[in-house]
Parts: sequence; C-alpha cells; structure tokens
Amino acid sequence: MREILVIGVGAGDPEQVTMQGVSALNRVDVFFVLDKGEVKQELVDLRSEILRRYATSKDYRVVVGRDPERDRTASAYVEAVDDWRRRRADVCAGMIASELGEDQVGAFLVWGDPSLYDSTLAILDDILARGELGFEVEVIPGISSVSTLAARHKVGLNQVGRPIQITTGRRLAAGWPEDVDDVVVMLDAQTAFTEYLDADIYWGAYLGTPDEILISGPLREVASEIEKVRAEARDRKGWIMDTYLLRRPR
Amino acid sequence: MREILVIGVGAGDPEQVTMQGVSALNRVDVFFVLDKGEVKQELVDLRSEILRRYATSKDYRVVVGRDPERDRTASAYVEAVDDWRRRRADVCAGMIASELGEDQVGAFLVWGDPSLYDSTLAILDDILARGELGFEVEVIPGISSVSTLAARHKVGLNQVGRPIQITTGRRLAAGWPEDVDDVVVMLDAQTAFTEYLDADIYWGAYLGTPDEILISGPLREVASEIEKVRAEARDRKGWIMDTYLLRRPR
Repeated sequence: MREILVIGVGAGDPEQVTMQGVSALNRVDVFFVLDKGEVKQELVDLRSEILRRYATSKDYRVVVGRDPERDRTASAYVEAVDDWRRRRADVCAGMIASELGEDQVGAFLVWGDPSLYDSTLAILDDILARGELGFEVEVIPGISSVSTLAARHKVGLNQVGRPIQITTGRRLAAGWPEDVDDVVVMLDAQTAFTEYLDADIYWGAYLGTPDEILISGPLREVASEIEKVRAEARDRKGWIMDTYLLRRPR
Repeated sequence: MREILVIGVGAGDPEQVTMQGVSALNRVDVFFVLDKGEVKQELVDLRSEILRRYATSKDYRVVVGRDPERDRTASAYVEAVDDWRRRRADVCAGMIASELGEDQVGAFLVWGDPSLYDSTLAILDDILARGELGFEVEVIPGISSVSTLAARHKVGLNQVGRPIQITTGRRLAAGWPEDVDDVVVMLDAQTAFTEYLDADIYWGAYLGTPDEILISGPLREVASEIEKVRAEARDRKGWIMDTYLLRRPR
C-alpha cells in the first residue's frame, strides 16, 4: 500500500522540525511539491535546506507539479477555493499515480502545522474520495506560525479561562468576533487590524526566518509603524507572510 | 544575567521535541519543576525520559518545588486562578533566587505549547513585575495537544476561510460560541460536548502517549461511548487529559 506523509516542518526555522519529523523525512522516497510559480525562492531554498540537513539516510526524489492558478477575482470565496482545491487535487493525483511506486512512501512538507489553514489534507481526502487511487495517510504535527508568534513575543494566546479565536483578515475586516478578547489573525492581505485601535497587537512577519520582524504595543501607537514596515518589507522581498494576535485587555 | 528557558516539549511523545528544544535542553543548568502532588507518575516519568534522552551534553540539576493548592471551590474562577498564580510565583521566585547562579540557565518544561492554557509565562511575568529578581526569558514553542489531536485524526481545524475557536469546557457548557462552526475544547472536566449532539466530534485522550485513545464521529452516535471510555480510563489511570474538536458541517 502506498503511504503519504504530511509533515509539518515549522514556521520557517529548520530547527523547529521535530524528532518525529526527522524520522519521517528519512522514510520518504518521493517528496511532492506544488510549485506556486511565485517569487518565494527563499521558501524553496528553506525547504531544500530542511531536506539537506535531515533527510540523510536514504535516496529520495523531489517531484514538482505546477500549482494551478486561483481565481482571486471571484466574488464567491469558498467556491473559488473549492474549485482551486479540485484542480490541485488533479495535479497531485497525477503526480502520485505516475511517480510513487505501490510500496513507496511519498510526502508533502507543510509550513507550520498541517491543521491550520493548509489545504494538503483536504486535497488528499479529495483524491481518496474519487476512489481511483489508494494510499495511507500519516500526519506529523508541526510548530505553527501562531505558536512561533506567541513564543517570540513571550506571551500566551489566551487570558485566564478565556477563549481564543483564530481567524482570517477577511473575517476580521467584517467585525470583531463576539465574546472573544484574543484574536489571532492569519492570511490578512489588507491589514484589518487598523480598524481596532483600542486593542494591543503582537505582530510578526517571516517568523522563524533570518528576516523575522516583530512589533508589539497598543495599536493606537504602533498601527502606522506596522503598516509602513510591512509595506517596505513586502516591496523589498516581493512577498510577505505575517500573523498577529490582537488582545483587548479585560 | 540569569536566563530562564520555557521549553514546549510536545503533547506527551518525546519524539515531538523539536531540534530547537533539544539545543535548549542542553543549555540548562537547573530544571525547575512544580510538583503537583498528584498521581500523575507517568508524566513525571515522561519528563525524566525527555531529559535522559536529550539533555546529554552537560550536567544539570532538577529542583522540585511544592505546587500550592488551588481553591477549586471558589465561585470567582478568575480570582481563584490569579491567587493561585501568585502563590505559584512565590514558590518559583524562591527556587530561582536560591538555586540559580547569576550566570546560569534555568528552565521550565511545558507540556504542549507554552502559549496555550499554560501559566508558566504569566508566573514569570509576575515575578519580574515584583522587581526583586531579574532574568531574561526565552520561549521555545512546542507541539500542542491541539495540533496532535488534529494530526492523529488527520483533519484540519478550520473549514475553508472559516474561524476556529479554542475554549474551555466551562465556557462551552455556557453556550456554543457565536459565528463559529469549529470549536476546540481544552480543560473540560464535565464533558460539555454532550449538549451538542448535532455536531461531529474528534476526541483524543493521553495524546502522544502509549495510552492514547481516539474516537470520532457524529456526537449522536459516539457521545455515550466517549463518556464511558473516558470514565473508565480516568478510573484506571487516576487522571485524564483529553481535548476535542467539535465541528458543525456548513
């Protein structure tokens, strides 16, 4: 039976790979990569560094598929993502069928943790549901960018006995969640935090990498600094990955 | 300057320690432990196993303080926890002052991730705020029980573009959170999930350990099985640590 490992490799620092992750990397015959065709050469290099450093005990191949374009103009967000996922599943199913032997182990490396805003598991479910290709799935949890953010700022995500909401910039822009004082935001292309100047922010970009940037404080004091630093970094590097915790003190 | 490392060591499987965690463990002169005076000998053994396996490059000491009792009968939950934390801070400050040399490195090991429902960082902030004792803090993120739960069930925590709420059993018992379909519950002593039979559950106990138990399915079908298995396990082992994801399909 074919086996597919979904390996969380941490937020960007190769030292965040777990011992379990290292063992898993050393069982893999074929690493599958969806090439996003973007300028994130640093992420490609980081992934290569993880393999070079840890996948040392056997030969492996890296198979790269072309990530389909996502329709970012579509008004129906969920449908656009569903359609994109189906086309990514087509690409992945093709790679697995043609490149992975019946008794071999394949793997997808996932930045952060596979359970948080990542589509790999859904793509594999999609492929399995089609019934044309069989494989076992194993998931190796990773250090998420959320845990990394909190660690770098030396803060907890929750206040005593209180909930945390993890959400997207798109949703935060639509309103502060009900009954929650601590909100972690991922995937925010539009700096939705600028709407909530009464909160404190713990912001981080390129977490775990040499380019990591951290800014924290009352939003009233640091919002425009973050906007400026964020825009400059994105211009300089051509891409940005950032996440933040907003906290309303009780 | 004294240094205190707060090291997330994963949910229970020593293989979840990160490479960064291993490096940190090998910098430590004194490991501080708050003895909960309970029957969780397995957790004490697991912690020893982590040190035995990874802290191999220098001598270290383990200093054990008596964890103060928490008033679990108090009606004012937050105040009771605050008071407990202050008394824990007293114990920790005493251990650090008397056992850690001025140029030494101390550490607290935290199960899971230090950012999620753990009081170590708040205790250290409390000690620093008193101004009597100075030290640098560094936090090493760990694999949380939440990430482990999702990995073992091979599910994502969020649905496409949707938020996740992480909360306590106490709060879930008071009502399902607004505008959220995916709720992760930690610290549930009262099986609050039984109130939401329309949801699906992904439940796990003793995650990452040899005693791990996983049950998932529509709550209408599995709620009483989980209650039964949970009660039996707690009786057999004398303690239980469990967490779960509740999902309302969209």
